[in-house]
Amino acid sequence: MKGLLIIADGLGGRPTDRNGLTCLEAASTPNLDTLAERGALGLMDPIRPGIRPGSDTAHLSLLGYDPRALYTGRGVFECLGAGLAVQPGDICFRANLATVERTTDGFVVVDRRAGRIETGQSELAEAINTVRLKKTSDVTHEFVATTQHRGALLLRGENLSRYITENDPHDVGRPAHRIEPAKRGDPAALRTADALNELIERAYDVLDRHPVNDGRRSAGEPAANFLLARGAADCPHIESVTSIYGARAAVVAGGALYRGVALACGMEVIRVPEATGGLDTDLGAKARAALSALETYDVVFLHVKGTDNAGHDQDAAAKTGFIERIDRELFGTLMQAVDRGDLHVAFTGDHTTPIDYGDHTPDPVPVLFVGPNVAVDETKAFGEREAGRGGLGRFSGQVLPMLMGYNNRAPKYGS
Amino acid sequence: MKGLLIIADGLGGRPTDRNGLTCLEAASTPNLDTLAERGALGLMDPIRPGIRPGSDTAHLSLLGYDPRALYTGRGVFECLGAGLAVQPGDICFRANLATVERTTDGFVVVDRRAGRIETGQSELAEAINTVRLKKTSDVTHEFVATTQHRGALLLRGENLSRYITENDPHDVGRPAHRIEPAKRGDPAALRTADALNELIERAYDVLDRHPVNDGRRSAGEPAANFLLARGAADCPHIESVTSIYGARAAVVAGGALYRGVALACGMEVIRVPEATGGLDTDLGAKARAALSALETYDVVFLHVKGTDNAGHDQDAAAKTGFIERIDRELFGTLMQAVDRGDLHVAFTGDHTTPIDYGDHTPDPVPVLFVGPNVAVDETKAFGEREAGRGGLGRFSGQVLPMLMGYNNRAPKYGS
Repeated sequence: MKGLLIIADGLGGRPTDRNGLTCLEAASTPNLDTLAERGALGLMDPIRPGIRPGSDTAHLSLLGYDPRALYTGRGVFECLGAGLAVQPGDICFRANLATVERTTDGFVVVDRRAGRIETGQSELAEAINTVRLKKTSDVTHEFVATTQHRGALLLRGENLSRYITENDPHDVGRPAHRIEPAKRGDPAALRTADALNELIERAYDVLDRHPVNDGRRSAGEPAANFLLARGAADCPHIESVTSIYGARAAVVAGGALYRGVALACGMEVIRVPEATGGLDTDLGAKARAALSALETYDVVFLHVKGTDNAGHDQDAAAKTGFIERIDRELFGTLMQAVDRGDLHVAFTGDHTTPIDYGDHTPDPVPVLFVGPNVAVDETKAFGEREAGRGGLGRFSGQVLPMLMGYNNRAPKYGS
Repeated sequence: MKGLLIIADGLGGRPTDRNGLTCLEAASTPNLDTLAERGALGLMDPIRPGIRPGSDTAHLSLLGYDPRALYTGRGVFECLGAGLAVQPGDICFRANLATVERTTDGFVVVDRRAGRIETGQSELAEAINTVRLKKTSDVTHEFVATTQHRGALLLRGENLSRYITENDPHDVGRPAHRIEPAKRGDPAALRTADALNELIERAYDVLDRHPVNDGRRSAGEPAANFLLARGAADCPHIESVTSIYGARAAVVAGGALYRGVALACGMEVIRVPEATGGLDTDLGAKARAALSALETYDVVFLHVKGTDNAGHDQDAAAKTGFIERIDRELFGTLMQAVDRGDLHVAFTGDHTTPIDYGDHTPDPVPVLFVGPNVAVDETKAFGEREAGRGGLGRFSGQVLPMLMGYNNRAPKYGS
């Protein structure tokens, strides 16, 4: 049997979303309602009740891992998702291209996102990667631009540490911080901070005078001349899905973070050029890619991000509309496969992103399981409150292990 | 938004309480039923399913802390709740005033509660506090009488340990035990046991000849001439509610233990002179104090104890009656505030104290959440079985974090 795990980022909502209904409850979702009728629902706390999840920690927990035991920071997943070959000992960061002005106070941040730069990022990345460090000359680095101003940065060398501060002042008009050891007198952290500070300064020198930025200045756009680095992380030891379940697993995701988490768990990446990681993604193409991957792989994890984007934008119509597109374009493409009888599907969110709050909340998320081994419950529609009446009750994380269980692929604990 | 957490100690019951109904189910609770209709119910395991909670561990868990990680013993909460300024390294105890007779066998216990002494305790406490230790002369102590025979005792000095035995034989007619190190050859525990044994002996000398006890003997009452100490604990590191949520928090509670737990979690104590920590408490006064505190504080924890007392007394009529008073006098005072739309209320118990058993059981407790961000479920009354059908399902502890989540005050874990 095969398994398909679909996570709609930030799927959950609150009754304040749309006149007493959540966006999911308000959306017309005939395919999901059919699956609810043919399967079973429950409420899932991504990490545990009352814990407000990040997307990284929530995904680890849904995939069956304990983030409290192995989460070191977001950077490692960004680097993996960006295609960097992270090795034990590397220190990984999320890094934005930003706009600064060099003053006597230091590098004053003018735009944290360099005007959401859309072109020329790979040339800038190449320039950053030509920099050679002098003071900590054995430390090498690699920067990859991902979407717009976003990127991933990796430092490699002996005896580095993730216990350092970030340089992002999280505000414009203020100088970027110097990177410091999080704990005074930690030699590995001091060495890492020194290397990163030197890299940031030398990168400024090559970025500020780069032809891409000359072009941006002529066009009245802010120069992308600075790196803001955060989320320092080293590579956690995560037992692979293949090792745990003896199963081959693949991921279909537009966002680098989600590919990165999946890669860290031993999944392989299926590239779908039409997947944007946004509201404009091609949901049908992703569904077709997942179905095609299921011919080769035992389990496929398909991630869509638009629900969360609309939640952060506090746009109830966009979130409801995207949920309706998930129902029509994604599940519409999948409904026939569900009928085959050799497939279990799990559908849920990684957390709740209500419209009114515009950020993640700890509220539980509805979850749906459907397939031959799922005991059908009385629910007839897919939504938060219907899930509260669901036959699966309320539980925390562990969605992939449950899916693998329905597929008779769970390892025995004890004997 | 503001949050109000109300815990009725030992609220939960069993169908053996009253002819097939729990005391809560048998009680007439129109206000709670209205709130159930306007909010959502669930079943909560105070610590986790099958674990029979103490009041201290249950409260830590409901407030969002893991008692397995940080619980060291009850004494520290008793000391904090009694108003002692506990410092790291101090060893704290619950200590009863008791009646003993000095014999060749040692101090034979005649009454473990000194006839539930009602007057003169503070004079006796003062006498205990005049004692100076000779053998471990650097160790100081402080005893505070709380209610009746109950009190809190603190030892302060370098290199003390909580790993010592207690002296309470838990029976009359038997000599009090000598305090011993829990593990042979532990020098800190030996030093602590020596100090406490000396204090107990010297305290007997000043208590036995104290005018308060002369008076008691003349009146035919047992002398309060001895200290029974138990629950040795040192000060755990508990991150404060203010540090976790950036919220100011206050507690309204008659019982020292509950004020102590709240103080350990960084809450401030609102004194309500009418709060007795018993069945005779003034519930309206406590509700008014909580409402008034909510003008200043972000979250208020209100504790009532009578439900548990009636459960321990195996008095179903008293428990049902107290629940009806909670509904009428406490919630009656609060109903208008719930309508304001800027308040979330959580109501639950810290454990189940059924009538037939007369002590805590591991059975889950019904929990109610109501407020603008709570998705209304189908429940229409507040009770154990109605909560089993509730939209919140079943979960363990974490009531305060969930309340703070509804108030958009939860910290993000991950990114």
